[in-house]
Amino acid sequence: MATITNRRVVLAARPKGGPKSEDFRFEEAPARPPVEGEVLLRTLFLSLDPYMRGRMNEAKSYAPSVELGQVMVGAAVCEVVESKSSELAVGAVVVANAGWQQYATLPATQVRKIDDRVAPPSAWLGALGMPGMTAYTGLLNIGQPKAGETVVVSAAAGAVGSVAGQIARLKGCRVVGVAGGRTKCDHVVNDLRFDACVDYKNDTFADDLASACPAGVDVYFENVGGKVFDALLPLLNTFARVPVCGRIASYNQTMPVRGIDRVPMLLGLTLVKRLTFRGFIVTDFAAQHEAFLTDMTGWLQRGDVRYREHIVNGFDHVVEAFQ
Amino acid sequence: MATITNRRVVLAARPKGGPKSEDFRFEEAPARPPVEGEVLLRTLFLSLDPYMRGRMNEAKSYAPSVELGQVMVGAAVCEVVESKSSELAVGAVVVANAGWQQYATLPATQVRKIDDRVAPPSAWLGALGMPGMTAYTGLLNIGQPKAGETVVVSAAAGAVGSVAGQIARLKGCRVVGVAGGRTKCDHVVNDLRFDACVDYKNDTFADDLASACPAGVDVYFENVGGKVFDALLPLLNTFARVPVCGRIASYNQTMPVRGIDRVPMLLGLTLVKRLTFRGFIVTDFAAQHEAFLTDMTGWLQRGDVRYREHIVNGFDHVVEAFQ
Repeated sequence: MATITNRRVVLAARPKGGPKSEDFRFEEAPARPPVEGEVLLRTLFLSLDPYMRGRMNEAKSYAPSVELGQVMVGAAVCEVVESKSSELAVGAVVVANAGWQQYATLPATQVRKIDDRVAPPSAWLGALGMPGMTAYTGLLNIGQPKAGETVVVSAAAGAVGSVAGQIARLKGCRVVGVAGGRTKCDHVVNDLRFDACVDYKNDTFADDLASACPAGVDVYFENVGGKVFDALLPLLNTFARVPVCGRIASYNQTMPVRGIDRVPMLLGLTLVKRLTFRGFIVTDFAAQHEAFLTDMTGWLQRGDVRYREHIVNGFDHVVEAFQ
Repeated sequence: MATITNRRVVLAARPKGGPKSEDFRFEEAPARPPVEGEVLLRTLFLSLDPYMRGRMNEAKSYAPSVELGQVMVGAAVCEVVESKSSELAVGAVVVANAGWQQYATLPATQVRKIDDRVAPPSAWLGALGMPGMTAYTGLLNIGQPKAGETVVVSAAAGAVGSVAGQIARLKGCRVVGVAGGRTKCDHVVNDLRFDACVDYKNDTFADDLASACPAGVDVYFENVGGKVFDALLPLLNTFARVPVCGRIASYNQTMPVRGIDRVPMLLGLTLVKRLTFRGFIVTDFAAQHEAFLTDMTGWLQRGDVRYREHIVNGFDHVVEAFQ
């Protein structure tokens, strides 16, 4: 086979704020021929996702950074152009982490053949790909939407938000999107069939959002943070769930948020470390009272749980005892 | 039966900051004789708990406020001194929401007879009462401690914290308490058998806490907020769980925290509204990939989920497309 020239994009500098052209460099190099078990792939569709901004930073997030001089990472739909694997024939269409390049050489075990009768190849980077699965798992496992509840989705016109909202709709929820600009909002309501979509660029955004959620908010699928989070917070109902999926509003911030408002930092940490914060009141678990009494009685009798009492004698001392 | 004089404490004014004696008023009035189905109770032990501070405020929290002139609320262990119920004989010992008074007249259905062979009566206000059940349900349902994990409990010498930590210990965890002062810390380690206890009043508190948690923190049972939360946050491991049970550090604050740090407000709201914030990354749910593909394929084929693609042609446009 004749040598194939691979055109690729490497990270040339770590962006400060929004990525600039100078932060990347186009290179050309011969594509590496596959060895036994590998395939040579030609990129058909490359997915460009918000998470990539994080990989351009030096600080380790939930996944390693891209090194300077390395090809930018990313999922792609590719065609097999040369195969040294019995599993994949030339012409097969696959999804792979091929990166920002025209050709990639990868082990056949690291690519997934797709069925383009189900959906066009590019859909495997969207609704059927990582963004769709993000929406599906986050909404269903954490959001746990129930019919009749109100679900708000930020970045509603995006690859993740558009799917999250539609799944919530399929579950019988009232679904309110948040997006930037009239065109996106119209798309969210007319094409994606959300019940409403609020434009965060409007001055009346917080009021508009409240009006769109007359029964409050039971699930907030958080993609952006920032002012959308601020407007949403007072609308959350008791027992609301907030899957923290992204915080696009902060991705281009070069420094920890200045000042002493640590809410954005807390949300960022919640995402990166997949923390769970959950408030509770003992009466929420009233159904467990008998189980508690059984366990605790046993623990006390066996001396497994000990306690110390602070007893103040005399009813007249009740106020000072409380203080 | 001769008239019994009931001595009681009513809320005279809403405290600003820490409650003062003038915020309460002692009153005497005849105890109301029980009617059919009711019992007259004499208070043996009255529980004084941090949550009561919230009830003194006008703003509705998860439970209604105490009105001015009303008897302060609270759980008590009481003895039945007069009974108009076939369920409860004179002399029975019960737990009831009797409030800050020496006598209370209540329906027999609203009190719970206790077995003082299991534990002394006062324990039914502590380890076997609401504080114990709070620790049990919050730790097990939300904290979900696993053997070998590190669990940190703030207000570790308190009624809730002391039980939460001991249950975590029974589950095989390394348990680190946070308490104020040497005496409390010694009690937590020596009597309650926590693995360590850190004094938040020490200048070296944040370092001491980090040293006590060499493998990070998997569960933080949050009772206090404030500086303890701040020191704890950086120590949380990936997938850590934070049951938000209380925020004693803020209970006496008269106003929403000034300045723009909204973390205390966010924690307060999380508790009062029992919110769940949970970060996630799609790969956390990798096991659900086949279920996702099955569902999403069906939804796409039926037109239940729609999507719009934004396709930029030409590899040379990759950087600007990302921007």
